[in-house]
Amino acid sequence: MTSRVRIIGIGCHPEQLTLEARSAIESCDYVIAADKGQDDPLLALRRSICSSAGVELVAVPDPSRDRSSGLDEAGYDGAVLDWHDARAAAYSSVISARPGTVGFLVWGDPAFYDSTIRVVDRLGLEYDVLPGVSAISLLAARHRLVLHEVGRPVLVTTGRRLAAEVEAGHDNLVVMLDGRLQASELPDDWDIWWGANLGSPHEELVSGRLADVVGEITASRSRAKDADGWVMDTYLLRRASPAG
Amino acid sequence: MTSRVRIIGIGCHPEQLTLEARSAIESCDYVIAADKGQDDPLLALRRSICSSAGVELVAVPDPSRDRSSGLDEAGYDGAVLDWHDARAAAYSSVISARPGTVGFLVWGDPAFYDSTIRVVDRLGLEYDVLPGVSAISLLAARHRLVLHEVGRPVLVTTGRRLAAEVEAGHDNLVVMLDGRLQASELPDDWDIWWGANLGSPHEELVSGRLADVVGEITASRSRAKDADGWVMDTYLLRRASPAG
Repeated sequence: MTSRVRIIGIGCHPEQLTLEARSAIESCDYVIAADKGQDDPLLALRRSICSSAGVELVAVPDPSRDRSSGLDEAGYDGAVLDWHDARAAAYSSVISARPGTVGFLVWGDPAFYDSTIRVVDRLGLEYDVLPGVSAISLLAARHRLVLHEVGRPVLVTTGRRLAAEVEAGHDNLVVMLDGRLQASELPDDWDIWWGANLGSPHEELVSGRLADVVGEITASRSRAKDADGWVMDTYLLRRASPAG
Repeated sequence: MTSRVRIIGIGCHPEQLTLEARSAIESCDYVIAADKGQDDPLLALRRSICSSAGVELVAVPDPSRDRSSGLDEAGYDGAVLDWHDARAAAYSSVISARPGTVGFLVWGDPAFYDSTIRVVDRLGLEYDVLPGVSAISLLAARHRLVLHEVGRPVLVTTGRRLAAEVEAGHDNLVVMLDGRLQASELPDDWDIWWGANLGSPHEELVSGRLADVVGEITASRSRAKDADGWVMDTYLLRRASPAG
């Protein structure tokens, strides 16, 4: 029997599942989820979604990843690729032992800063992808924002690259994967619309002139981490208009 | 009675509605939709969603918009702002006559290249926003793409600005609102992942080296327009790696 994989974006909370995503989960023989160790809160959430859908979840211990902070960009890329290979090998052995339709549930949307498509692509199996509501869209909704000025662009990037992007002239950016609020080190004035753990019961939101709200963001971030056991930030950063 | 507005992202087809969006529609006393004239296919779709939810749809004739192609950027911005004001005035008079909880259904997600938040913000009423699956996420899912290389950025922009963005050095862009495939006029080699009418029954997808697929895209675009009566393109454009 040939196996088939479905990568399913599940949005940022259980009510953000789309109707087609719910049907897709129900169509799976089982769902594979990475198990990052004791009390993994995102694993618990996936477990509860699968349980509602009547589909078994198979937890696969997640290979460890080299997160050495001293890595340069090439070293970082290499560490990520090794980790993708290790994940693919772990999933492959599960699927070989148990062929069928296998689901992967992706928090938010699989198209932004998520490795599932890259890992599944290595398996050599047929697969499809269903989109979900991204953390970016949820951030915008919570702050009632359009992410760009009329007809203008928005750059989606990472905390690691933020300083270089600003130096290159960007003035309207969505920043993900930033655990150190790198925006606070930028020169000049910025407006920020920030969120952590968007969609979780302990979601935090802060907005305002960056220099005025850095302290509030730091406190909110700790609160989210204490409450949920994990923290993920997303924010829109826009160069402040000069004082009129 | 004070009215309240709910801006509800509905994704790109009826099965892409989230569970919370469906509840939000059901919570409305009625839904307002712009009526762009005879046989408006997106109005028909909204009507069918409302009818499934048992909520009345009130169609409001859409003010005309100055689309003079000769407008420079400032003229374009001004025309858009006037049009936002005219829409707000039209909605305001409907809501004054009939207070309650009023929904607006936004195709895709309200955060990207959609005017609903800006128009509703002018009404001076309490409102909330629910995110939807964006056309960008659906494009990525259909082509099974992550929208950026590992840890790298993606610029979301418009056809009108594409040439300038490329000149500024961007090599990974999502392009929206491009009715003339402006990518085809760029120098150098590009890979494209293109879609039209994503989520509609006549969705079209094309991908490949841009120079090789321009003709196929043009033909697919006409087919989508003939079949659906409207056409909207979205694509990811990535600078091609030099031939090895």
